[in-house]
Amino acid sequence: MSTAPTPDVPFSGLTRLDHVGIACRDLDASVDLYRRTYGFEVEHEEVNEEQGVREAMLRVNGTDDGGATYLQLLEPLREDSPVAKFLDRNGEGVHHIAFGTADVAGSAQEVGRTGVRVLDSAPRRGTAGSSIVFLHPKDCGGVLTELVQSGH
Amino acid sequence: MSTAPTPDVPFSGLTRLDHVGIACRDLDASVDLYRRTYGFEVEHEEVNEEQGVREAMLRVNGTDDGGATYLQLLEPLREDSPVAKFLDRNGEGVHHIAFGTADVAGSAQEVGRTGVRVLDSAPRRGTAGSSIVFLHPKDCGGVLTELVQSGH
Repeated sequence: MSTAPTPDVPFSGLTRLDHVGIACRDLDASVDLYRRTYGFEVEHEEVNEEQGVREAMLRVNGTDDGGATYLQLLEPLREDSPVAKFLDRNGEGVHHIAFGTADVAGSAQEVGRTGVRVLDSAPRRGTAGSSIVFLHPKDCGGVLTELVQSGH
Repeated sequence: MSTAPTPDVPFSGLTRLDHVGIACRDLDASVDLYRRTYGFEVEHEEVNEEQGVREAMLRVNGTDDGGATYLQLLEPLREDSPVAKFLDRNGEGVHHIAFGTADVAGSAQEVGRTGVRVLDSAPRRGTAGSSIVFLHPKDCGGVLTELVQSGH
């Protein structure tokens, strides 16, 4: 496998900003705010019991890798979920950003080689059947960062 | 002017996630981190004296409105700049998000009509000759939100 960068594909294989994850206390109210204020519509909604969230994906635009960029609104299901703890500490706001890749395991390996801690030893299930890993925010300039491979 | 939503253009005229603004203490170190970790390259760098920042735009992907999505790395020039205050309170991390529009004045007016406070009475100069306004984060789900019209 070549790991040389090319003009089109970054070294890490990350080809788009997939989404910005935003923590909120009331998903329905937040969906309403984003629709009413900006006109963004919900493309997908689900409960992720493992992560302890109810979430909605609002599509903002298509991307030149054939994917799209979304706002991901996240409401905690439980007091002990990571998003609930984030809300306690910070209030509502940006929780993480996610870069899209065609190969999340490969991208995680490449990023890990640079010294960034990958928080998941193997990809786990994200939104809509996607595969995801998280990177340690302390190694990413204070930004909780997710890598995501679309499920379709 | 028609304000009816269409399938392609949201009511507000916002057609892309233009950038995620990230506050950092040392721009050169952050640029190096993002290049080394992900392969993102600097497309533009400038000093904005009015906003009290030195900044770099790293291109992530192209968008289907003919624009692109960037990471905007922001280093404060002065102790009293808004980004310096953000760093004091929060440390390094996501500072704001920005949506792109072909008409920032029109979009600001539409968004303002929904009750969201627009912090700039008229668009001011953003990165690379762009025109920008900021929206009050308390009206935007805790997210400091910028609207931006490209300068080219």
